[in-house]
Order: sequence, then C-alpha cells, then structure tokens
Amino acid sequence: MTTTDILLSDLGDDGVLRLTFNDVARRNALSEAMLGALGTAIADSGKNPAVRVIILAANGPAFCAGHDLKEMTAGRADADGGKAHFAKVMSMCSGVMQGIVNCPKPVIAEVTGVATAAGCQLVASCDMAVAADTAQFSTPGVHIGLFCSTPMVALSRNVSAKHAMEMLLTGDMTPAARAAEMGLVNRAVPEDMLQEATLEMARKIASKSSMTLATGKRAFYAQREMPLAEAYDYASQVMVDNMLARDAEEGIGAFIEKRAPQWQDA
Amino acid sequence: MTTTDILLSDLGDDGVLRLTFNDVARRNALSEAMLGALGTAIADSGKNPAVRVIILAANGPAFCAGHDLKEMTAGRADADGGKAHFAKVMSMCSGVMQGIVNCPKPVIAEVTGVATAAGCQLVASCDMAVAADTAQFSTPGVHIGLFCSTPMVALSRNVSAKHAMEMLLTGDMTPAARAAEMGLVNRAVPEDMLQEATLEMARKIASKSSMTLATGKRAFYAQREMPLAEAYDYASQVMVDNMLARDAEEGIGAFIEKRAPQWQDA
Amino acid sequence: MTTTDILLSDLGDDGVLRLTFNDVARRNALSEAMLGALGTAIADSGKNPAVRVIILAANGPAFCAGHDLKEMTAGRADADGGKAHFAKVMSMCSGVMQGIVNCPKPVIAEVTGVATAAGCQLVASCDMAVAADTAQFSTPGVHIGLFCSTPMVALSRNVSAKHAMEMLLTGDMTPAARAAEMGLVNRAVPEDMLQEATLEMARKIASKSSMTLATGKRAFYAQREMPLAEAYDYASQVMVDNMLARDAEEGIGAFIEKRAPQWQDA
Repeated sequence: MTTTDILLSDLGDDGVLRLTFNDVARRNALSEAMLGALGTAIADSGKNPAVRVIILAANGPAFCAGHDLKEMTAGRADADGGKAHFAKVMSMCSGVMQGIVNCPKPVIAEVTGVATAAGCQLVASCDMAVAADTAQFSTPGVHIGLFCSTPMVALSRNVSAKHAMEMLLTGDMTPAARAAEMGLVNRAVPEDMLQEATLEMARKIASKSSMTLATGKRAFYAQREMPLAEAYDYASQVMVDNMLARDAEEGIGAFIEKRAPQWQDA
Repeated sequence: MTTTDILLSDLGDDGVLRLTFNDVARRNALSEAMLGALGTAIADSGKNPAVRVIILAANGPAFCAGHDLKEMTAGRADADGGKAHFAKVMSMCSGVMQGIVNCPKPVIAEVTGVATAAGCQLVASCDMAVAADTAQFSTPGVHIGLFCSTPMVALSRNVSAKHAMEMLLTGDMTPAARAAEMGLVNRAVPEDMLQEATLEMARKIASKSSMTLATGKRAFYAQREMPLAEAYDYASQVMVDNMLARDAEEGIGAFIEKRAPQWQDA
Repeated sequence: MTTTDILLSDLGDDGVLRLTFNDVARRNALSEAMLGALGTAIADSGKNPAVRVIILAANGPAFCAGHDLKEMTAGRADADGGKAHFAKVMSMCSGVMQGIVNCPKPVIAEVTGVATAAGCQLVASCDMAVAADTAQFSTPGVHIGLFCSTPMVALSRNVSAKHAMEMLLTGDMTPAARAAEMGLVNRAVPEDMLQEATLEMARKIASKSSMTLATGKRAFYAQREMPLAEAYDYASQVMVDNMLARDAEEGIGAFIEKRAPQWQDA
C-alpha cells in the first residue's frame, strides 16, 4: 500500500481500504502528485487480495477541488505554451478516472464538503457514492472559461441530460439532497452519520466473494456500452463462466444447505 | 393460447391477456419449464390478433425468484460439470427477456411480492411495470457467489448507474416506492388497488391501434441504440410509413372530424 | 434576426434572444412555415455573436401542439398519397430539432401550457427547460394512430425507458411537477415566476464566454454517443484545446487574481 502525506491509506481487517485526500491547503486538488498517488493506490489495490472494497474520503472542507490551476498555469511558461503539459495532465487524470472504473474492487466515494470539477468527476466515476447532507457538487469550469469537458464524460453517464447540462452551463452548486435525486450519489445522510453509513455499505460488500465482485463490476461497464442483443450474448457467457467458478458452486451450495458460504479468498 | 399449470393464461374481450405465474411452491422460479411456457406464451401472443396488451402477474408471495437454483445445480452432475446445461438455460432466459422486448404487443408487469434476480430482470424487461407498495426488488446473486450479470443488462437500461450498482453490489432489497423513484417501475400503488390500476392502464393501451403500437414499440427499442442523427433518419422513415398506413389516416381523420376512430383490427 | 408574425424574436442587450411562438390560433403547430421560421432563427442565432443564449417561449394556451395535422392531411391529395410531402415535413422537423442540439448557443425552453407530440420533442431537444407548474406534456400520437416515433428520439434521451414508454403508449398528459421528477424539464416553477426564473438562468449563462459554451455544448452531445475510453480521449483533447484558448487563460488568470474575467467576445 502506498501512503503519502497527501493521500492517507488505511486498510482494515475487514478488507475495507480507506483512502483519504489530505492536501487540505490545496483543497485536495488533483495536482500531478495527487493524481500519481491516487492512480498508484487504486492500481495497487486492484492487485492486493487483502483489499476487498475501497472508500475514497477527504480531510478538510473540500472533498476535491479538481485540477490544480496554479500548477497548470505554470505550464504556460513552457516553449509550447503548455500544450504538452496540459495533455499530460489530462491523460493522467482520465487514466485515474478510468482506473477506478476498471479496478476489480468496488470503489465508494464518501463525500464531505465540496466536490468540484474533476472532484465531481471523481464522485461520478466511483461505483457508488454516499454524501454528507452538507456536501455540494459542481462543474464550475464555465466560470473560468474552461468548460468541464472531461468531468462531463462521467457526469453524463450518471445523471439525465438536462440535469448534467444545467450543472455544466451554469456552474451552480448542487446540494447533496438534489444530487441524490439526480442519481449522482446513492444517498445523502446526516454528516455525523456519513462515515458509519459508508463503512456499513463497504463492509457488506466486503463480505462477498472478491471473484464475484470483480466479475460483475467488469461486466457491468462492458455490457452497458453494447446493443441489447450483444449485451445478452456477452452477459450470458459471463454467467456460464461464473456458474463454473468455485465460489458460485460454494455460494449456491451454501444457500441450498442454509449455511454461510466460505469464499476462496476470504 | 398456451395454458399450463405453472403459467395461467386468461384473455379478456378487451384484448388484455393476463399471464399469471403459478408455480407458488418454487416461488415462480424460471425453471426450464417456466421459461418454455413464458417464451411460448409471449411468442404466441405476438402473433394473435386477439391479444392487444399483455399483463404479467403472479400468484403467491414471490413475483418471481429468478433461476431455479436446484435445477441448475443438478446440471453439475453432467460430464462437463454443467457447462452445456448452464449455457442452455442462460440462452433460454435471455431469449425470453428479448422476446418480451421484441414482442409487438406492449407488456406490463404487475408486481406483487418479491422480484429477485432474473425475476427483477423480467420487470426491467417489460415495457411498463406497476408494483404493489409492498413489492420488493433485488439482484441478490452476489450473496451466493453468482453476480446478477444477465439481470443487470435489463436493470442498467432502466435505472441510473449508481442505483444499479448499489442493487448489484449489495444485493439489498429495494422497496417499491424507491423502485418507482429510480425508474424501475412506473409507479407503486396500494396492494388492493394494484390489479385495477394495471388493468386500467392495459385497457387504455388496448383501445389503440395494434399496428400503431407495434410500429412504435419496435421503433423505440431500435432507435435508442443509434446515434442521434441515425435515430432521426430512422424514426423519420418510420413516421412516413406510419402516416401512409390506414390507421393513421383513419385516426387523424377522426381527430379532425371530432369522432372516435375505428381501427382496422379492432 | 428573422422576425415573422408566427415567431417573434427579441434580442436583449444581455445577449439573451427570446423566440416566442405566436401562432396562437393553430396552437403554435409546427407548420412548414413555423418549422422554416424556427430553423432559420436558430441557424442565424448560431452565427450571430450578439446572441449568447436562446429562450424558446410561446404565446397562448399551447406551448406547441406538434405537427400541423390539417396541413399534413392536405398532402394526401398528392399523386403519391402524401409520401413525398410527409418525408419533407419529417426531414424539416428532424433538421430543426438537431439544429437546436447543434446550435453553438445554449437553448432553454420556457414552457407554458401544453407541449404535445413534436412540441414535447422540442422541449426534450433543448439543452435545458423550465416549466410553469401548470404546464403539461404528452406524446399523444397513439390516440390518432400515428405513434410519436420522432418525438421519442428526443424523449428517450431525456427520461428513463419506463417513463418514456408510459408517455408513448398511453398518450397521457404528464404534469410539470412529474416532468421535473422524470428529468424532462429542469424544474417547475409557479407560472407567475416562470419568465423571471428562465431569464435569470439565461443571463447567468450569457455572462460566460461564448467560446467556452460552444466548445462545451458541442463536446457534450458528441461524447455521450461514444464508449467511455473514446469519450475520454476526445474530451481530453477538447480540454487541452480549451486550455490553450484565450478565454481560458483569461478566466483562470482572473480566478487566481480574484478579479472578474473579460471575455474576448463580450
């Protein structure tokens, strides 16, 4: 497990890995250092059998403020006006977001404070999200002449078109309760219950077969990009392979015999 | 009309066919017998001009419990460990689900009790669904090591990504009211009003031109898989053909003359 | 700016263009004349730097009643039974709807009264929509034998499948509050506050960089039709280009320096 000062990492005996943004002074901006730390932590977790579920949380008043604008602006001094620098940062950031989607372990955002721009994208990229009722979300790039075009890739795959467009065109803050109605987060809970609510959800998932979770998560994102008939052909094959796996035989057997299943990797 | 003991079939003068799952002892599981009966009933209804709308209902405390796990487990005794058996069942099941989507008659689920796994998929595969306020929905495969990968094909085409993922990763029950908010069902109504509410909806639709319903239903599922420009080219052609059909001429004429239309097949 | 009697046009100093349907006697039907006027107004606005945001409003009890059925029916007298005429009208109409989507200026529907058939499609095709709480929406083609197949292209890209199907198969009216829950409109407000609420939203957007809005709107509709990885590659390139544009440098600089940005075209 990578632990850096800006990204804390805490793995419990329950298999729940808690990653906490800790660059409070920079509002947990996705600096190159933060993108590197987060990308590495997610990639490592994907390969670590001790990690069963990942919670992504934050210290400070901002969950994540998006890109580090000062760092990006510094790139303008380069000979190419920053072009190569910007391309590198966007590539890193898109890689981290897709790393969450492609990670075999479920990832749950535990959102406190404000999640803006690429910070909002991060929430949208997680498999699930629980928010404090005081949390807020926005894609405010339009205020500074830089449309939140990469955040909208994730946002528009979570909420309806009109809701996404309102956030993107106005840059307005969306309160947690509204974000829950829109489908950006699974639910909003009182701030003092957030950590417990998220952990309870994480532990419930951590008690399942990791093989099964990995199979299902991969299939979810794959099938949703296919036409219906193709999706059924693909998912049917996934089901057949899943049926033939040891954990399904054990799980179904345990269910029929009314006992608790023993997963292979537990 | 096929009527078997496990699937009751009742066609009214109003053109509303009521199919009722009646394998209460097995919680209306989608055994091979049930898949066969349902698939045949849907296919036959598609060709029967007396059937204008289909309601899918259930007897007993479970709307449908998904696959018949005991029957599937028995397949493990085969020389190939069940592989061919599982593939056959998945193919049958995916065929029935797509048979509902491709059926020219609108299909409405009338959900009582619990609809789980492929039973939840069935609700998601219908064109519309009305639920008793006591109904519940889940994709609990994750509890038994067998991720609900085929159910998620239908589920993820009904509800937002975060909501689908929560159901799939936790296996938790979703109450009817929440399912209505999420878009999995059109609405939840008091249990004692369910049958009347569903029948009223079905009769309203049954009073329309069957040709028009078939045209529209087919076009709905076809266009939603196309890019916008292609969808408009396709749907525009559908509209032109529809305008040239007898029932549109009759319907528009009746509207302009302020009289009731007489559909060709009514 | 084109102003015709059936479509009023009023451009304010704030860059907000108000287009108002004014064919009250025909319930603002999308006659060929109206489609021509609207298509031209949208196309012209796209090229006019003085127009920053477009509001689409209506006079009279109907926002827009869809196609002009009497005009279409008159086409049946043609030698081909109307086929060429219908094809022309559908092509014009689909062109206008896509013209709204492809217009570089954000378009907001301000909905009063009933928006039916292609009128409902118009609301769905706008980037955002605000409705009076007395407004109503329907796709009633099924009542007259002509399924709302082109309206459903837009509708099904705004609301969930079951909600779209209910509107399409029953033809029932959906009240504004329900339309807001479904995502067809952004919100429903008291009728006497509608104009102010819409204008406030429009002015907020009009205060942004037109270059940035055009970049973002184009990218939104392009990326949503792509698989995730392709969408990220595309959107990342859009972000790099946006970063290198003058208004992003100005906007980010202003943000860091805590001053108001001066857009190039303002």
